[in-house]
Amino acid sequence: MLKKPEILMTPGPTPVPPEVLLAQGSPIVYHRGPGFGEVLRHVTEGLQWVFETKNDIVTFTSSGSGGMEAAVVNLFSPGDKVLVVSVGNFGNRFKKICDVYGLEVDFLEYEWGKTAKAADVQKALKPDHRGVLIQHSETSTGVVNDIESVAKVVRDHPALFVVDSISGVGGAPIKVDAWGIDCAIGGSQKALMGSPGISFMTISPKAWEANKVAKCPRFYWDWAPVKKSYERPDPETPYTPAVHLYMGLAEAIRLLRDEGLANAFARHAILSRAVKAGVKALGLDLFGEDPERAVCVTAVKCPEGIDGDKLTALIRAKYGIIFAPGQDALKGKIFRIGHIGYLERSEILQALAVLELALDELGYPVKRGDAVAAAEEVFAQA
Amino acid sequence: MLKKPEILMTPGPTPVPPEVLLAQGSPIVYHRGPGFGEVLRHVTEGLQWVFETKNDIVTFTSSGSGGMEAAVVNLFSPGDKVLVVSVGNFGNRFKKICDVYGLEVDFLEYEWGKTAKAADVQKALKPDHRGVLIQHSETSTGVVNDIESVAKVVRDHPALFVVDSISGVGGAPIKVDAWGIDCAIGGSQKALMGSPGISFMTISPKAWEANKVAKCPRFYWDWAPVKKSYERPDPETPYTPAVHLYMGLAEAIRLLRDEGLANAFARHAILSRAVKAGVKALGLDLFGEDPERAVCVTAVKCPEGIDGDKLTALIRAKYGIIFAPGQDALKGKIFRIGHIGYLERSEILQALAVLELALDELGYPVKRGDAVAAAEEVFAQA
Repeated sequence: MLKKPEILMTPGPTPVPPEVLLAQGSPIVYHRGPGFGEVLRHVTEGLQWVFETKNDIVTFTSSGSGGMEAAVVNLFSPGDKVLVVSVGNFGNRFKKICDVYGLEVDFLEYEWGKTAKAADVQKALKPDHRGVLIQHSETSTGVVNDIESVAKVVRDHPALFVVDSISGVGGAPIKVDAWGIDCAIGGSQKALMGSPGISFMTISPKAWEANKVAKCPRFYWDWAPVKKSYERPDPETPYTPAVHLYMGLAEAIRLLRDEGLANAFARHAILSRAVKAGVKALGLDLFGEDPERAVCVTAVKCPEGIDGDKLTALIRAKYGIIFAPGQDALKGKIFRIGHIGYLERSEILQALAVLELALDELGYPVKRGDAVAAAEEVFAQA
Repeated sequence: MLKKPEILMTPGPTPVPPEVLLAQGSPIVYHRGPGFGEVLRHVTEGLQWVFETKNDIVTFTSSGSGGMEAAVVNLFSPGDKVLVVSVGNFGNRFKKICDVYGLEVDFLEYEWGKTAKAADVQKALKPDHRGVLIQHSETSTGVVNDIESVAKVVRDHPALFVVDSISGVGGAPIKVDAWGIDCAIGGSQKALMGSPGISFMTISPKAWEANKVAKCPRFYWDWAPVKKSYERPDPETPYTPAVHLYMGLAEAIRLLRDEGLANAFARHAILSRAVKAGVKALGLDLFGEDPERAVCVTAVKCPEGIDGDKLTALIRAKYGIIFAPGQDALKGKIFRIGHIGYLERSEILQALAVLELALDELGYPVKRGDAVAAAEEVFAQA
């Protein structure tokens, strides 16, 4: 059987552009000196651009979860009281990290599929909260929280506002300066089209002040030496970075700059609408209370009698397209179609066509072409 | 001016083979499922092979320093008493990490250039030491400690034996099982010929027991979820790994297996002898009390009137070969030639010839061809 590379329509990693692959496959650049200095400068300036911020950027060779831990240990001390807002798996992860470091967590937990409400956050906020931690795009459910409205509530409070935008940044707007986010966290492998292995975050002046007194133990994640290394004439990192991934990420950011940020957001929004129109045309229901906001990942309820794990496994094995299954309580009950990163219209049509075939094979009544037709309609109107 | 890729004759990263670059430049494999499972299995089995161990392996997307932190936080609790043996910069780093986590450090510190002595370790070991931490190859000085003899001293003591072999593994033997090392740490970017961004370590049953009661806070570095994820039918990592770097490392390990471990050690030893013969033929002195052991990195004393930073900068700028300058107190006073990883005999001759030219340009009296001739003699005899 001909085996082509699988197409990743997951919430990340996403397909990696050939330009990025070529950069990663180029001879290595030494991590001290002008060569890597230029790569790192491109990356940090590009990240400021995509986060719409003048704040400092630090990066780490790690997964996005490592970036979440870095934010917590650099901003807080054991015993600090924080408000963690959770709408899914990654919100729970924030709580877990805070628990590990002995923070006192007030937990504003929503049923999976719900979107966080600014009014709830306002009600939950107490004067002694040192931080509010929340997801921008919650990968497990596709929910994209309204960070702008939550930011308005947090802005008048001394708490630091920490936003995990790992699967959000580049896919949906996150205006760090305009909204007043103290620390926004991202990852290389989602809408930014890089390969996994780099996490990064923005640091506001207020966050730097907090960092000076934060007592959580940290070595690898410590921001201060990172900043110092970045300020050398040839910027570098304190410890040997994943040089090739930075070379790739610099290239991915260049592609995104060529496209333009507004265009990238528009592309993601249109792909999202097309996916949603397609699955609805098959009679499937979207998961979550506010699916129209879910521009990065579409979560779909499995119809009666169809197991989501079986469906995604079939599509992967037979057609080489990877959708993500549901996690934890949603295992088998939903499947998730990622439409961030290096994806274009025709690939959405391809994926929806395959979904039709697979549902049909599993015994769900499908009128062939309906999903594709509905998505085509979205594209034709756009 | 024609700009070819620079040749990294540093203590790491080292040149990355084309086979590894091709793997890193291939379409991404999804990190859940059989594709990545096979990559991860290759990597962990290969690492067991190179460490000569049946112990478990865990890997992290991080620099080697992250791996050092992972070892500390997984094995110890705040207040635990440990013995840190330092012969240079990375020994000091082990102390710093232990300090950060509130361990009580007894510090056996040698002057830079000295090799650790088993007798000193025996004398310094106290009954309540929970661990002994030491470098195999100390990158800052080139010193390769005699881990086998130190291991004999630690073996009869309840302390865990933790060895940073980041720039050692693959370059010089490290027999984890035979010597009784509880946790040996390595990195992808040194003698193993991978690209930087993956750290890994071996974990003995005794280390696993210690892990169960170790109280240092940890999330990303936590070994337990890594082990659990590795034991799935398709092995995976708990958080999204640097997939492409694992694909590259699997390829690098395949190259090393094709060469054979004994052959790789012999290659590194011969390259090391040739470098040392070459610099000595120019009248330069080797740095360190036991340079013949320094099979990974050769540290050379700068002659009177020659600044090591200027010398390495000149060689890099004019000839595209990167030697490493001295660190900290040795800044300007030594330079370091790395000869681990993807390097062969002719490149040693090339580097020594360039060294002759550069020393001559800086006013040091050189008889052209002397270093090259001495190295050739080593190769001819080998």
